[in-house]
This record gives sequence, C-alpha cells and structure tokens, in this order.
Amino acid sequence: MQRKIIPDVVKRQTISSLKTENTALEAATLMAKANIGAVIILDGKGQLIGIVTERDLTRRVLAKGLDPTKATLAVIMTKNPDTLSPDDSAVDALELMQARNYRHLPIVDGGKCVGMVSVRDLYAAAKQSLEESIRETEAFVFGDRYGA
Amino acid sequence: MQRKIIPDVVKRQTISSLKTENTALEAATLMAKANIGAVIILDGKGQLIGIVTERDLTRRVLAKGLDPTKATLAVIMTKNPDTLSPDDSAVDALELMQARNYRHLPIVDGGKCVGMVSVRDLYAAAKQSLEESIRETEAFVFGDRYGA
Repeated sequence: MQRKIIPDVVKRQTISSLKTENTALEAATLMAKANIGAVIILDGKGQLIGIVTERDLTRRVLAKGLDPTKATLAVIMTKNPDTLSPDDSAVDALELMQARNYRHLPIVDGGKCVGMVSVRDLYAAAKQSLEESIRETEAFVFGDRYGA
Repeated sequence: MQRKIIPDVVKRQTISSLKTENTALEAATLMAKANIGAVIILDGKGQLIGIVTERDLTRRVLAKGLDPTKATLAVIMTKNPDTLSPDDSAVDALELMQARNYRHLPIVDGGKCVGMVSVRDLYAAAKQSLEESIRETEAFVFGDRYGA
C-alpha cells in the first residue's frame, strides 16, 4: 500500500509557528517547550514563508556569535522552504529529505501549513511499507505452496 | 545480508571532538565548519565521556539564555552517551535510535571513538537491506518459476 503523508504518516494539525519579528531566543524557547526540532514562520495572512530549525539556530546564530535576544527570524529563517502536499507519498518524501539533507518538511494545503513531518515519522512509515511488501511477497509464495 | 555498522554503514575514522572546557560557541563553530550535527567530548586520555548535539545547543544554551562564550561543554553535554560497537547491525542501531529519539550514535571500540553514525546513514543502509530481502524473496519465487 502506498502511504500518503496525511493521514497515513501524520495527522492534520495546527503546528507551532512564529513570525519574522520573533527572535532566535523565542524560537529556541518554543522548540524546547513544544519538544520540536523546527518551527514554521508565517506572514500576517497566515501563509508559510519560512522555516527555522535547530541547525539554523546552531549555525546562523551561535556559530556566528549573534545575540539571540536580538537576531530576528527574518534573518535566520530559510525562506520559501520546500514543502509537501498531504497527498504526497511517504517514500517520495523520504527520498526528497535524503537528497536535500532535510530533517523536517512542512505540509501545505492551499497555502496554509497543515502539518509537519520529520525524517523520523517518515522512516517509520517507509519501513512499514517495505516490510509489508516483503510479507505480501511471502504470502504470495507460501500461501500458494501451503495450499498445494 | 545483515549490515554491520563498520564497514557497511560508515568507515572507521577520526571524528571531530572537543573537551569539557570548550564552550558552546566553539561547539557550534566546529559543527558549522565540519558540517556535522553532533560532536563528541573526550577526556584527557582520549576516552569518550559525552556528546553535544544541535538540539543540546538549542535547548541547553539558547533556550536557557546562557552566554555561549562562557557555557562550557561540561555543563551542556550528555554524559556517558549510549554507543554502538563496530559489529552491531544497522537495523538494531536504527531501532535503538527510534526508541530513544537519538539522531547520532558514537561507535566505540576498546574505549576509543572510531566513528559516528547518523539516523540518515542508518536509514540508507536499512532501506537497502529491506529492499534486498524483497529481491531475494522475489528471486526465490520467480527464479524457480522461470526455470520450471
């Protein structure tokens, strides 16, 4: 069975977001509180315009010696991030993450962010999918033979 | 085929390390420069005593408002991290990472760190392994029939 991002891998949900004028400190605090590794950035109309990850905070704030109470997400975020649609397959999404070295991908439907998947979520789904293929092949083989 | 951590997933290598007296700023700078997401901490004898990840820097430094030029890795690191041995299987390692929510695991041989694997490295190996199982099962089935 081909698993779709929504609803097979994650559920549709309101996810944690910030605005461009929020700071690196606020992003880190939200990530720690919500136990997440990435936060999306929305404009005034609620449209997705960026993403900030733990990697961005490490490399673009800490490593550069910026003041986390002053550095705004406008400067730190990755603008116009790649996104998934709810109907994309789990396996294709994982290939995209592997190829581009992403850990998180926002799921967008009609300009609105309706969820987020991590490489971890996707791995679990892809593994299940591959294991199912093995079982189906085995059932085809041994199902035949047991009946013969 | 059961893939082993070394040499099937990663090669034996000297990996980036710091000491407990280094700072969060130094860890972030090293991670950015070496394009890595985690750095191991060694004691004076070169034994592995801790690990610091981008998540640790985000949550234990940024989110807590610590000064990255002053916060030492002694305070930030996860002490005595779980490790793999070179002979562990890729699939078992991935299960451990999934279960405990790790992204990186140091590989230790005789007290010395001889490599590091990420969930990304392991996923690629585990996927290949599962796909191979599918191909072997199929070869068993269709190889038989084509010859019949």
